This record gives sequence, C-alpha cells and structure tokens, in this order.
Amino acid sequence: MTSETPQHFRLNLADGIAEVSLDRPERKNPLTFESYAELRDWFRALVYRDDVKVVIFGSNGGNFCSGGDVFEIIGPLLDKDMKGLLEFTRMTGDLIKAIIGCGKPVIAAVDGICVGAGAIIAMSSDLRIATPEAKTAFLFNRVGLAGCDMGACAILPRIIGQGRAADLLYTGRTMGAEEGERWGFYNRLVGADDLEAEARKLAQRLADGPTFANMMTKTMLAQEWNMGIEQAIEAEAQAQAICMQTEDFRRAYEAFAAKQKPVFEGN
Amino acid sequence: MTSETPQHFRLNLADGIAEVSLDRPERKNPLTFESYAELRDWFRALVYRDDVKVVIFGSNGGNFCSGGDVFEIIGPLLDKDMKGLLEFTRMTGDLIKAIIGCGKPVIAAVDGICVGAGAIIAMSSDLRIATPEAKTAFLFNRVGLAGCDMGACAILPRIIGQGRAADLLYTGRTMGAEEGERWGFYNRLVGADDLEAEARKLAQRLADGPTFANMMTKTMLAQEWNMGIEQAIEAEAQAQAICMQTEDFRRAYEAFAAKQKPVFEGN
Amino acid sequence: MTSETPQHFRLNLADGIAEVSLDRPERKNPLTFESYAELRDWFRALVYRDDVKVVIFGSNGGNFCSGGDVFEIIGPLLDKDMKGLLEFTRMTGDLIKAIIGCGKPVIAAVDGICVGAGAIIAMSSDLRIATPEAKTAFLFNRVGLAGCDMGACAILPRIIGQGRAADLLYTGRTMGAEEGERWGFYNRLVGADDLEAEARKLAQRLADGPTFANMMTKTMLAQEWNMGIEQAIEAEAQAQAICMQTEDFRRAYEAFAAKQKPVFEGN
Repeated sequence: MTSETPQHFRLNLADGIAEVSLDRPERKNPLTFESYAELRDWFRALVYRDDVKVVIFGSNGGNFCSGGDVFEIIGPLLDKDMKGLLEFTRMTGDLIKAIIGCGKPVIAAVDGICVGAGAIIAMSSDLRIATPEAKTAFLFNRVGLAGCDMGACAILPRIIGQGRAADLLYTGRTMGAEEGERWGFYNRLVGADDLEAEARKLAQRLADGPTFANMMTKTMLAQEWNMGIEQAIEAEAQAQAICMQTEDFRRAYEAFAAKQKPVFEGN
Repeated sequence: MTSETPQHFRLNLADGIAEVSLDRPERKNPLTFESYAELRDWFRALVYRDDVKVVIFGSNGGNFCSGGDVFEIIGPLLDKDMKGLLEFTRMTGDLIKAIIGCGKPVIAAVDGICVGAGAIIAMSSDLRIATPEAKTAFLFNRVGLAGCDMGACAILPRIIGQGRAADLLYTGRTMGAEEGERWGFYNRLVGADDLEAEARKLAQRLADGPTFANMMTKTMLAQEWNMGIEQAIEAEAQAQAICMQTEDFRRAYEAFAAKQKPVFEGN
Repeated sequence: MTSETPQHFRLNLADGIAEVSLDRPERKNPLTFESYAELRDWFRALVYRDDVKVVIFGSNGGNFCSGGDVFEIIGPLLDKDMKGLLEFTRMTGDLIKAIIGCGKPVIAAVDGICVGAGAIIAMSSDLRIATPEAKTAFLFNRVGLAGCDMGACAILPRIIGQGRAADLLYTGRTMGAEEGERWGFYNRLVGADDLEAEARKLAQRLADGPTFANMMTKTMLAQEWNMGIEQAIEAEAQAQAICMQTEDFRRAYEAFAAKQKPVFEGN
C-alpha cells in the first residue's frame, strides 16, 4: 500500500496518515483535468480503506494550490458545449463530494497561494491550519464566473457566516490569514516552518482516536446539513447508539476505570 | 407550585424565573439516568405552565455539569443491547428536544466544568453566560464515541461555525471561556461572583418582556431550522400576525403614545 | 430611466448603480405602508432590468431607517383583523423576498439608526458597510412582538451565529457598530464622511464585474439555503456550467492571455 504512487499528485502514507499534495510547485500547484480526476478517484476509494485513518492535504514549495490551470483547463473549456461543461463542473463537484464522503477527517495545511479550486479544497476539508502567508481567494468572479462553484454558496456561509461569505464570493478578493483565523475559516495559524509538523501532530491525535467514531462524526456533519432540528437529534441518537457498540467505547471505559490512557483500535 | 421539589436536581422558582441546577457538586454535577429523565419530564411540562417565564440552568459549587456519570451511566451502557442503547440515546436526545421545545427562553449560566452532556445542555440553551473559569468540552471523542451526540453536529456549527465545531467535535478538546465568547458560543463573560446575579438580571428582563412573543421567537428559531428562505419569511408573516393580536402589542403602543414604559402581561 | 422618480423614497441611478434611501430624515427615515409597497414593487421589477447592476440602500441625514412608523403603521395595525394583519406582514415579507430575489447585489450603507424593519433591510442585503455611529436593533421584542419578523429567525443566525442572533432577537438590544463588525454582520466600518464614497466604490467594483455571474451568485446563495450538501454541489455544477457559456468567461480568459484587465459586459 505504501508503494501506491499516483501519477498526478504526491502521496505519502505512513502510520495511517496520508499526506497528499499537488506537484507542480513551480506554478504554485494548479489543478488539471488529470489531477482532478485522480484525486476524485483516490478520495472515493478511501471510504473502503482501513490503512488510511486521516488525510493531510498539504502545500508544496510554499503554496497550497493555484486552482484550475488557466491554459490547461480554462482555455479548453471555452470550446466545450453544455454537455462538456457540465461534465467538467460535475467532475470538480465530485472531488468535493468525495472529500466530504471519504469517511476520514481531512486536514488542509495551507501555505501561500490557496485560490479558486484550491480554496474550495481547503473549504471542504474538516480542519484547516494555515501559515501567516496564506492567501485564500474564491476568485471565480474575477474570471467571469459565479461564486457558486463546487458548493461554495452552501458551505462557505456555514464556516464564516453569510455576510463574510458574500463578500468573498462577490468580489473574489483575497482573505488574509489573520482574517481567516478570526472568521473561523482557519482553525489555527502556525509558522511556515512548523506547518507540516503541526498538521502531522493533529493528524496523529485523530489517528490515535476512535476512528470508527470519527467516521461517524464526519458522516453526520454532512448528513444533518439540512435536517430539521428534531430529526437531527433522532439521527444522532441512532448514530451514537451504533458507536456505543464499538470496542473503542469499552476500551475508553476500562482505561478510565484503570486510570490509564485508552488505546483505540477503530472498531 | 413553589413547593415543587424535584428529586434529582435543584429547583428554585420565584417571580416567574425558574433556576435549575444539578446537585452533586462534590462530583462536579454529573448526570445520571434519573436526573436525565426527571429533567426531561420537567422541561416537557414547561410548555403548559404559565408560572415559569424564563429558565436559568445554572452552576452549583463552581461547576456546571461534568456530563454523564462514568460509573453510573457509561458502565451500565456497556452491557446493553441495541434496544437498550437506543433507549438511552433517545432519552438524552429527548431532554434536548424538551429544552428546545419548552416555549421559554433558557439561559445557561456556566461556571467551571461544562463537558459532555453538560456542554450539550449549554449548547441547546438560548443564551449562555459564562465565567472566565468555564471549561467547555464536547469530549465524546475522548470516551470512544462520535461527536454526533444529542444534536451537536447540527446545532454547534450554527452557533460557532462549521470549522470551529469540527475542531471541538473531532478532538474533544476544551474550549476556553474567552475563545467561547470570541466564537459566539458564550454571549458574555462575567466574574464568578456576578454570574448568578447577571443571569437573574437577564432572566428578569426577559420575564418582564412580552412572554407570548418570546415563546414565538423560540418556536420559530427551531421551526425555521431547515426551511427555504421564502418559506421562512412566509412562516414569520403568519407567526408575527398572531403576535399582533396580543394585548402586549397594544400595551407597547399605548405606553409609547403616553411616553411610558410598557408593562407586558404575556397575552 | 434616470428620470424615474419614486414617490416614497429617494432614488439616484447612474452608471448602473442605483442608490436608494428613505426620505424622512427629520424622523430618522421610518417606513410607511406606502414606502413599503413602493420599495417592494421597485425591487421586484429589478429582476427584469438591465440598467441597474448594483443597488446601494443608503442612509439619509445621518440615519438609515427607524423601522415601521409608530403612528402611521403600528397604530392602524391595532384595528386590523387577522386578514388585515396577515396582509401587512406578508407585504413586509414580500419586500425582503424582493430584495433577496432581485438578481443584483444590494449593499446596505448604514449610518446612525438602523432598527426594526431597517435592521431587517440591512440584514437581507448582500453586503453591509457601516459607520462607527451605526446603532442596529431588531427591537420587535420591545414593542411586544416576536423576533420572527421578515425572516430574522432564519437569516440573522446564518450571518452572526445562532447564539448572538438569539441575544439580539430576545432582548431587542442595540448591536453597536464594532460588535456588528466583529460578529460578521457588518463587512466593514468606515467614517461617516466616507460612507457614501466607500459604498459607491464597492458598488462600482461589482458593477464592473461579470454581472450575469453575480446574479447567479445571488440566486444560488438563496437557492441552496436548505439543500442537502450533495444537492447543493450538483446545483452549483449546473449553475456554473451556465456561466461558462457567457462571453464574460471568454473575455476573462482572453484578457489573461493578453496580460490585460478583462472588461466584462454582463453577458
């Protein structure tokens, strides 16, 4: 499994933590048709894998992702008909659905440029750590498009509030790192030298936790997105009852009773 | 009514304000099967009572609530089958449904430990005041369970945003009081010596207000949880038209015309 | 078109930017039955107009809007039956639906008093700039009514979070300008002398952008209000594919390739 080598992105897998990043640092890591598709397939397959417990979507060469490549993606899109366009927007949306549906917590570790589809990948991650140099922009408006890209009009308002989301989506302006932390987009800022280590530390904490339960947390955060409040409470009664049948729940109790730290195994 | 004495929690009722708190301060006020059930029944009955206009869910002995008791709740759960587990998770969910559906504003006054089910009770209250010593943790993850407990994956993101909620729910970490205020979980921080008085002052303000209208505010905050935006506006047109037929609406107008302060009576 | 003169509010239209404000500065710009209805009709017609690209809802004489006039609105409402009351609450709701559905970004430029229906108009705008003197209050509670007015229980929580919204709606208290900025209600604060110029500058930026795409951003921000997350992503795949067929998308690409600034035309 560790010898798995994707063609269009970097992957390092060790101790249950998969580190993913794009691999064209000289161009600030743009996405291409190929990397979109390969990432989508990789995240989709995650749901069936036990060897990956947490994903870090990291930066490379000081940048996270510069979005869809202008010449390799935007250019060709101009020649497509509606069938072809919808094929493309659904593929990009499918990457986001795959990240949200993969069953493992995804941590975005953002340095430098994080724009367009890059900002969307960060947005659809569960947790976000950034450096003070992170520059995040939902810049679709600046390339003649709408802010409604890959779920941004639904997801971004729930992270930073409707008014701040509207500001970013209507203007395409850059959200600075401190602003992003203040608004709740970034969970935390750390120096560039510490970014990888801090992301790994957080990933390790999650990987050492009850991973079946983490999967359920992730599932329900999406599942309850537009339930009524009573329905959400019932849905959680069912989901948590399932988790109470795991061995990890018993392990936690027994460790507590023995005044020890529990060792979770994810079942 | 004032002689009403619950068996498993403290209750003080005066001037339309019910002060509720847990009563095992030596153990930081854990919940038990019995206190869960009695609180659920008490909040459920509130909807039919006119003598209670506002509820304060307060602290006792420097702590709010330490959550489900490890030995009295978690231990016995390990021996239950799915029917029994679901019975339990539905009972806890029913307490939250009862708080949300009770028709009276609930103010959590939080000092010290506020974790697990305690954090959930604070979360499902309408308003939250805390001391700088408040330590709030949705620590389910740390006992091998998922963050989806009693509505947390639906409610917490709407209070503090999806990203910050994910942080707390995946890690089970403690949210400090200042962090909680900054994120909008706590409406305000006050010194421990002032907590009870400040909660009472706010409760009095609400109790002196138009309580029928407050009930409608509470109802609609839950009712519109997942309506479309146009449907929510129509729902409010109906709800507010009902409130315009109350005497309190007339009282406010007449007081204004007479340059006096209105005296509301809740009808 | 520029000679269009509404009877019950001020309108100035130039360069695709419509500046709207109420026109009774001596009473801090209350709304009346007539101005409600005329504003509703004007915003409703906007969706079919190409000459207006952005709307600024501004202040006049140092105040934004003092809400429904006590003697011209609240007094007469006391004599209405349910049919008449619902007629009124639906008319006010229809103004908010019209603002949300008008297809053009609306910028509220708020100075001084911004209360009751005035606060609602600000809330239902897309972007909000205020002066340090802005005093915003959802004061329905103080006139004997519920906080559920014109969508407040649905919209305000999504802008500032459920807990802060509950505070404002249950108490009717004033939210100060700095508080409003800190909570994400106001996107930015500017001095009173700069308010108009800053609002115009932002409006110009939006008017110079891809206005068809802006319309789609606005549409989807409302449309996805209570979709499931997967459904929202599919809805955006369709909406963005439509935008990719606009000439503005091509213009952006060609300008980028030529290292020029794109000139958008809104088609």
